[in-house]
Amino acid sequence: MATAAVLGASGYLGGELLRVLSSHPEIEVTQAVSKSHAGARLRDVAPQLDRFGDLVLTANAEGVDTDLAFLAQPAGEAMTTVPALLERGVRVIDLGADYRLKDPEAYALAYGRPHEDVDHLAEAVYGLPELFRDEIRGARLVANPGCYPTATLLALAPLVRHHEVVGTVVVDAKSGTSGAGATPTPSSHHAEAAGTVLPYGTPTHRHVPEMTSILARLGPGPTPLVFVPHLVPLVRGLLCSIYATPRPGGDAAGWTEILQDAYRSSPFVSVGPVPRLPWASGTNRCYLAVQSAGGVPVVFSALDNLGKGGATQAVQNANILLGLDERTGLRASGFGI
Amino acid sequence: MATAAVLGASGYLGGELLRVLSSHPEIEVTQAVSKSHAGARLRDVAPQLDRFGDLVLTANAEGVDTDLAFLAQPAGEAMTTVPALLERGVRVIDLGADYRLKDPEAYALAYGRPHEDVDHLAEAVYGLPELFRDEIRGARLVANPGCYPTATLLALAPLVRHHEVVGTVVVDAKSGTSGAGATPTPSSHHAEAAGTVLPYGTPTHRHVPEMTSILARLGPGPTPLVFVPHLVPLVRGLLCSIYATPRPGGDAAGWTEILQDAYRSSPFVSVGPVPRLPWASGTNRCYLAVQSAGGVPVVFSALDNLGKGGATQAVQNANILLGLDERTGLRASGFGI
Amino acid sequence: MATAAVLGASGYLGGELLRVLSSHPEIEVTQAVSKSHAGARLRDVAPQLDRFGDLVLTANAEGVDTDLAFLAQPAGEAMTTVPALLERGVRVIDLGADYRLKDPEAYALAYGRPHEDVDHLAEAVYGLPELFRDEIRGARLVANPGCYPTATLLALAPLVRHHEVVGTVVVDAKSGTSGAGATPTPSSHHAEAAGTVLPYGTPTHRHVPEMTSILARLGPGPTPLVFVPHLVPLVRGLLCSIYATPRPGGDAAGWTEILQDAYRSSPFVSVGPVPRLPWASGTNRCYLAVQSAGGVPVVFSALDNLGKGGATQAVQNANILLGLDERTGLRASGFGI
Amino acid sequence: MATAAVLGASGYLGGELLRVLSSHPEIEVTQAVSKSHAGARLRDVAPQLDRFGDLVLTANAEGVDTDLAFLAQPAGEAMTTVPALLERGVRVIDLGADYRLKDPEAYALAYGRPHEDVDHLAEAVYGLPELFRDEIRGARLVANPGCYPTATLLALAPLVRHHEVVGTVVVDAKSGTSGAGATPTPSSHHAEAAGTVLPYGTPTHRHVPEMTSILARLGPGPTPLVFVPHLVPLVRGLLCSIYATPRPGGDAAGWTEILQDAYRSSPFVSVGPVPRLPWASGTNRCYLAVQSAGGVPVVFSALDNLGKGGATQAVQNANILLGLDERTGLRASGFGI
Repeated sequence: MATAAVLGASGYLGGELLRVLSSHPEIEVTQAVSKSHAGARLRDVAPQLDRFGDLVLTANAEGVDTDLAFLAQPAGEAMTTVPALLERGVRVIDLGADYRLKDPEAYALAYGRPHEDVDHLAEAVYGLPELFRDEIRGARLVANPGCYPTATLLALAPLVRHHEVVGTVVVDAKSGTSGAGATPTPSSHHAEAAGTVLPYGTPTHRHVPEMTSILARLGPGPTPLVFVPHLVPLVRGLLCSIYATPRPGGDAAGWTEILQDAYRSSPFVSVGPVPRLPWASGTNRCYLAVQSAGGVPVVFSALDNLGKGGATQAVQNANILLGLDERTGLRASGFGI
Repeated sequence: MATAAVLGASGYLGGELLRVLSSHPEIEVTQAVSKSHAGARLRDVAPQLDRFGDLVLTANAEGVDTDLAFLAQPAGEAMTTVPALLERGVRVIDLGADYRLKDPEAYALAYGRPHEDVDHLAEAVYGLPELFRDEIRGARLVANPGCYPTATLLALAPLVRHHEVVGTVVVDAKSGTSGAGATPTPSSHHAEAAGTVLPYGTPTHRHVPEMTSILARLGPGPTPLVFVPHLVPLVRGLLCSIYATPRPGGDAAGWTEILQDAYRSSPFVSVGPVPRLPWASGTNRCYLAVQSAGGVPVVFSALDNLGKGGATQAVQNANILLGLDERTGLRASGFGI
Repeated sequence: MATAAVLGASGYLGGELLRVLSSHPEIEVTQAVSKSHAGARLRDVAPQLDRFGDLVLTANAEGVDTDLAFLAQPAGEAMTTVPALLERGVRVIDLGADYRLKDPEAYALAYGRPHEDVDHLAEAVYGLPELFRDEIRGARLVANPGCYPTATLLALAPLVRHHEVVGTVVVDAKSGTSGAGATPTPSSHHAEAAGTVLPYGTPTHRHVPEMTSILARLGPGPTPLVFVPHLVPLVRGLLCSIYATPRPGGDAAGWTEILQDAYRSSPFVSVGPVPRLPWASGTNRCYLAVQSAGGVPVVFSALDNLGKGGATQAVQNANILLGLDERTGLRASGFGI
Repeated sequence: MATAAVLGASGYLGGELLRVLSSHPEIEVTQAVSKSHAGARLRDVAPQLDRFGDLVLTANAEGVDTDLAFLAQPAGEAMTTVPALLERGVRVIDLGADYRLKDPEAYALAYGRPHEDVDHLAEAVYGLPELFRDEIRGARLVANPGCYPTATLLALAPLVRHHEVVGTVVVDAKSGTSGAGATPTPSSHHAEAAGTVLPYGTPTHRHVPEMTSILARLGPGPTPLVFVPHLVPLVRGLLCSIYATPRPGGDAAGWTEILQDAYRSSPFVSVGPVPRLPWASGTNRCYLAVQSAGGVPVVFSALDNLGKGGATQAVQNANILLGLDERTGLRASGFGI
């Protein structure tokens, strides 16, 4: 049984981590950190998490001495927390953006501040197991991808690797509002968000460099992206509709086959009919489908932004780090509705 | 053509007032006040209100010299604004709670602060036209009821007047989240509000004294209320399900008749089948229905919390003040869906 | 490992049963029956249930020879299916209404047709484990309660047993639309249901006799109910707001204590703060809270209508039948959002 | 005052027509046809439409002798209704698809049946006033565009006319479920539709030929479309996110200017900030915005699928036919929320 700490325990990703880990047979959460609720019992803050008994939330990472730490903190905090954790021998899975870009300049450009832990950037492994399972196995520091990059890269990576895609790719993403986090804002205010579809993130969403940098590692050259996220009136769930020009002769049937081959030994990625978001809800599943529209293949990629797009993927990474079957604690089936 | 000012123009009630007044044939909005957006053009803050052309939002009520002022300000501001307006000869319709209770002690108890304009409390008329049309006609200061009291009182007032109700009445209210206002809060955060039904306002909702004080004026004695509001995942709309013990012999058919009689000359109140909320959306309509459940009559009362529960009722009051047909500018039919 | 069949596998309750059983360590679903999808592979009908591999849906119950059968069929079918199953030694958990009322006259009155298996009515055990755990243990035939009775009875039973409640009780229920089943109807059409709160079931909902008959077994006399269910724009989840007159001296604190005592050894029922529906989503949990409103105690009861109000409760019953810890396969924590 | 008939009065478009016409100062609805509700009073079928008094629904178009007829019938019915109406001198605005394509072969291909009124195809005018106002003025038969073509064409037409767009255009559309009509289906069942985003209409949506045929009339050559509609969990409202490759040098600022110029004298089309769907709700407004994403311009087009995408646009066409100001009866401002 490995011990684990969850930092950022009162946010949505932190809560989802705790939910999943509450029935994980090989990982025991022994510490939980929340600045905003330090001193409270976890079960008083989150009554649905009563399986953690009398676990009390602590204020900071200083006392964390577990085998693993899951970091679900606000942007920019991980890079001040990670060095000490690694020094104490704690293996880290960071659900934030701090270690996803290798290039500190790119980080500064995307996030508007300098990177404060350049030393560990090179060491960090991009935690998308279906693409980088081998690198993750021995890592001390895993940069867990964001929800949009996970959905987009699982759809595009095999196609880019096979040189199936020509020119710019359009990714039109539709996300539930939990992806925006637990802090109330005007655009996530119910009366505003419930009655519309809100495109945002223009001119450039922060996750675009994360996606293009990974695609550049896989393909013959850069894959430019036009990425437009939209908030839709759902809580959980994310659908990317991906429009790419196929190479001459490329079609939906061929793309389906390439994706099926790519994920044959990946238990969490399915390629099949047009997905419904509840299938992925609360799970580590990503559902891909290729359909033909107007004569060109369109790829749909669906997942739970808090699941495969966040917390359950972090647990999958933890399983790999620990040498466990990557499905451990992640076998629940999704909802029909 | 009367001139009007809207104070609190960037809130939800203020926006709805402006929407309705934008096509009112006898009232012209010439001033709009918004602390938070002072200096901006209204149409830049609310592009859907482009019919107001280049009207600019101003910071406070000092310059207001219109025939009428609609006050849709945060709680507690009206009582500091009203005296000067009245002195300048501006007739006031206050959509907030400051002038709804006659008794300053009751106000202090419900709202947690002393009343600052006791002088005008006695003069204020409770602006529920179906009950107090005659008093409103000559008023300088109208206290426009809240959404819950409007829905509840329109259902209960005729029954209480006819001594049809015995003992405590249970009002289980379901409201869209726009009733909570435009300021983001945890309970109105989309990811929190969209997936649940949230009872709130216990032990006592602030609107209860407003309802019981009016019922006490109408009936033979006090009518105790157990009032529990619930946020439901809707933006607009409010349904009250009202459970009252009938006098011996009282039944659903009799109550339907009493309500129909009471509102025969009230064009905005209908008594008929179980209502759908869109019927009332954006309108000044209240739909009442009486059904029998478990042998006792249950009354359903539906309206738009921003409409008959707020802005359109204020316009109805304005029409009455101005001696117009009370339907002026309020003739739009509701939605089917 | 016990074997199980699910009848009605393509409905919402059937799907939820299969979802939960897909990771149950002691029950293996070896047969699944669906009239409408007979001949298809389950995973083609429900791609999220791919853990069942190549299990094929069959047309009827004739071939069912498992240890257990879960019946999630349309109303009235169970009573034609059960006799043969029992004869073949299959233990039955019926999620429908056919065996919930002991009195065939009451059944005929509520459901508008005569009961066709009166022989087994007496034998059937009402499957609300928190109240009738001992009777369930040895049963061959369990009548799993409906969602509304589960939520209502868990709240009221201890209070009625302690003579805390006087006179008629009002139950105002708010339910997600999945409770209405998978068959499209006008009132569950998205464009109709998404924008309103729909009271229905008047003058008498079919579940009322189920509730009153159980309460009559527990208390000193009949407990009349005024029960009004409302569809709210949610998929899963059910909240009952329960208004009962307390005995003289009864109050919210006392009721909280009584409920906490009653469920101290029931792992799926919690008594605490006002619940959020996602806490129960996909789980077997029921969350109770007592608040004071207008001076009287109000009880809120929340659960997932497909979970504790249906499929997971059926699995809890199965666990009890099989002599397992009743939490087996039901340990997942609920969602925060 | 012109007289009008509404055929298909109990559908969603028919209901919206009646709602808007109920306060139109120059058009009086004197006849309403509904196969499914023939013989009933309109106000009993749709209580929110009580302004029509005792108007009774009739079974078919035979008795229609009004100045105008609005046809909101199921697909394929208009072409059997129109000839007789025209012969009787009734001017027709068809909200369905029967007269939108000039080429009967294209019709047969898109709708899977032969066209039955080829004689009037040539005469029919495509009722998108912002593009074809002059043609509409004198028409006897107007083919009112669908919601998707209206949103797409208003965004693209000026750009195509100015040769701003190169190659294939991707239109990712998000629509509320009312666009699917009032007939319950599995994909519009609340429990299915409320929890997901559903791409549909692949491989080719029926509205694509309507869009490409109009674009071909405007531009230098064909504009191929990849059009993918998605159902989102909203009732009303439609957002198209439009991705087109600009000509060299083309950018968001230039496109904004072109669109603003194009609609300077069109009161119902605005070009400005990213729109919110409630701004258009119940109105005849279309809100366009151009944003830069990943260096290329993206156009957003928002309207109410039942409004500018259907019923209010039909009224706009009627106004033009009748020589009225096209804004008559359509001046209501949209909602803020």
